[in-house]
Amino acid sequence: MAPEKRHKVTVVGSGNWGSAIAKIIAENTRDHPDVFEPLVQMWVFEEEFTLPPTSKHYNGSSAGPQKLTGLINHYHENVKYLPGIRLPDNLHANSSLHDAVKDSTILIFNLPHQFIARTCDDLIGRIVPYARAISCIKGVAVSADNVSLFSDVISEKLGIYCGALSGANIANEIGMEKFSETTIAYDPPSEDEESTSSSKPAGHSKLTPIPHGYPTVDAKILKTLFHRQYFHVRIVSDVAATSLAGALKNVVALAAGWVIGLGWGDNAKAAIMRVGLLEMVKFGHMFFKGHGIRTETFTEESAGVADLITSCSGGRNFRCAQMSIQRNVPIKEVERTELNGQSLQGIGTSYEINSFLKAHGKEAEFPLFTAVYEILEGKAEAKDLPDLIERDPAPKL
Amino acid sequence: MAPEKRHKVTVVGSGNWGSAIAKIIAENTRDHPDVFEPLVQMWVFEEEFTLPPTSKHYNGSSAGPQKLTGLINHYHENVKYLPGIRLPDNLHANSSLHDAVKDSTILIFNLPHQFIARTCDDLIGRIVPYARAISCIKGVAVSADNVSLFSDVISEKLGIYCGALSGANIANEIGMEKFSETTIAYDPPSEDEESTSSSKPAGHSKLTPIPHGYPTVDAKILKTLFHRQYFHVRIVSDVAATSLAGALKNVVALAAGWVIGLGWGDNAKAAIMRVGLLEMVKFGHMFFKGHGIRTETFTEESAGVADLITSCSGGRNFRCAQMSIQRNVPIKEVERTELNGQSLQGIGTSYEINSFLKAHGKEAEFPLFTAVYEILEGKAEAKDLPDLIERDPAPKL
Repeated sequence: MAPEKRHKVTVVGSGNWGSAIAKIIAENTRDHPDVFEPLVQMWVFEEEFTLPPTSKHYNGSSAGPQKLTGLINHYHENVKYLPGIRLPDNLHANSSLHDAVKDSTILIFNLPHQFIARTCDDLIGRIVPYARAISCIKGVAVSADNVSLFSDVISEKLGIYCGALSGANIANEIGMEKFSETTIAYDPPSEDEESTSSSKPAGHSKLTPIPHGYPTVDAKILKTLFHRQYFHVRIVSDVAATSLAGALKNVVALAAGWVIGLGWGDNAKAAIMRVGLLEMVKFGHMFFKGHGIRTETFTEESAGVADLITSCSGGRNFRCAQMSIQRNVPIKEVERTELNGQSLQGIGTSYEINSFLKAHGKEAEFPLFTAVYEILEGKAEAKDLPDLIERDPAPKL
Repeated sequence: MAPEKRHKVTVVGSGNWGSAIAKIIAENTRDHPDVFEPLVQMWVFEEEFTLPPTSKHYNGSSAGPQKLTGLINHYHENVKYLPGIRLPDNLHANSSLHDAVKDSTILIFNLPHQFIARTCDDLIGRIVPYARAISCIKGVAVSADNVSLFSDVISEKLGIYCGALSGANIANEIGMEKFSETTIAYDPPSEDEESTSSSKPAGHSKLTPIPHGYPTVDAKILKTLFHRQYFHVRIVSDVAATSLAGALKNVVALAAGWVIGLGWGDNAKAAIMRVGLLEMVKFGHMFFKGHGIRTETFTEESAGVADLITSCSGGRNFRCAQMSIQRNVPIKEVERTELNGQSLQGIGTSYEINSFLKAHGKEAEFPLFTAVYEILEGKAEAKDLPDLIERDPAPKL
């Protein structure tokens, strides 16, 4: 029996990863019009864009700068951030944040983390109070004495429940429908009756129930919304580890890049990844007790071990770290010369995590994270990594 | 206080991996003459070898074929199987198996698995009854209705306890002293007093105690014997998973090679590896109950996740599988043209594991292992892997 009401879905953000997720969402709302309003809004931070001659839509003479939303809706392609990928007709680029989220019951957040707070501020009072959210934003917000999950930031600012999506998800590959998996962590308080965890982050006690007539937003409906033949979804309850792993893996990827840059081979890289994975697990248990954190999320889910593998294969942090050794220049210089103004997340995360560990007196318990920081600071060398991460040398007999 | 008696160590086998392990062992016995007899015997299956012009020992004219043991002992290099790597002076190549193991209290087995049974048969009555062994042999012995660990085969044939060593260990990299980690699983019955597991494979009840005066063969002494600055050792109790992972990863590596051959990218490879890792875990728990098998050995140790990563980076199974797709030829043909008479372990293991799963009616519970077999058999195609491994499609709402 079809439900009386259908969920309306909005994707907040339209970069490379935002557009790839929006494509999946729109494919699934189109395929399941019984539970979802097929038309998906995608909020686009409006900008002007000039079609490059490499675009298949370029017609020999440039039309000059045009509005990105107009280009996306006209060509059904995010010509700037996900060029070459056809987006579904039922995905609508919208430059008005307020209009894009109007009446939406499911909000997918997928924007650069520096925009999260102000975007949420702008959304206060503009969303339906019973909306549910998923954050696809990689990383965590770290201050000297606190690590916050972006899902909690969204949740607290808007007074709605927010889960997290993360995985071995290079956006371009997903856009091209090359096979991927992802992890969705979703564990709202019991109003929704799908909770299994006993521990909740603060601020969810006043969660507004979803009105009668709407399908419950649960694991089944999220799977229907995100799962594709080329994008396999597993639903877990552990939001903390799902989010944390996506930040910490970038620190490990720097170290993996360095040892490959040193010419040390696959054994060394695998060793660094293994040690890094265990420090990720340890960090989660030490600082997210009471969040229902589970070792298995790191060691068995796409958001954990698989994302780490992808990041240490050809990810940006890995590649720049490798180049910095091969060219014998500081990684900051590689970042400057190779990334066209973008920054390496691993560097920022490494400094933030180190400040946080220092503030808690726990540096020594995370030898790899600490070694990466020391190497970035020029206080240690990558070639000393085996000694720096050695926790248990051969005993004196 | 130094012990009264020192352990004598013999490496049984002298291939690429055997020679690399023998080098480490001899470095450590040399560095710890208080607990080990420095001279290490390495049993070499005698053969004739002619120094190639590429050898640094080639003097312009070939001396013709010479005995391999003589070459190894003269040049301190296994010129055939680990060329270019200087072996310690205290490592002695010995073509007599009986002489090599005489009075040895620690035996390191490192030979191709087809030679294990006959070599053990030849050793019966030739070893001291209180010897302890470590098997560095990758793989498991599979028949239609049984999977045996090589460590158990050695143990039962010789009536001594045998542990296992496995990890992300490409032998040439270790020979060159590039950083690696490994896992040693050692959990003898309680005569040795270091046991933590309550479950033992059969046949150990009559274990002969190590005579008074010898240092106990425990985690500490094994770490002293194997650990180097460039070769970090972790000791665990789980012999079954340590051994199993080294066999099953080759099946996963075939699938990983196929998806890369298809041009599917790093997301897809990481997904296959994650799914494969979980099937390895499941296989272990299903068929090695009572062996003290632990999920963590697969997901957290070098013998598990790290070895899988290395094997899916540039290992032989991975590369040949990739080539078979790129060239559109059966993998058996790639094996024939690329491997110079050697065989791909992943193919053999895949067929063996499939027969075993069929015999137990469990094929459907291992969709990736089964898919690899079906693809090898030509009954399925690599491009169907996402559907073949899909266990939990989007629900009907």
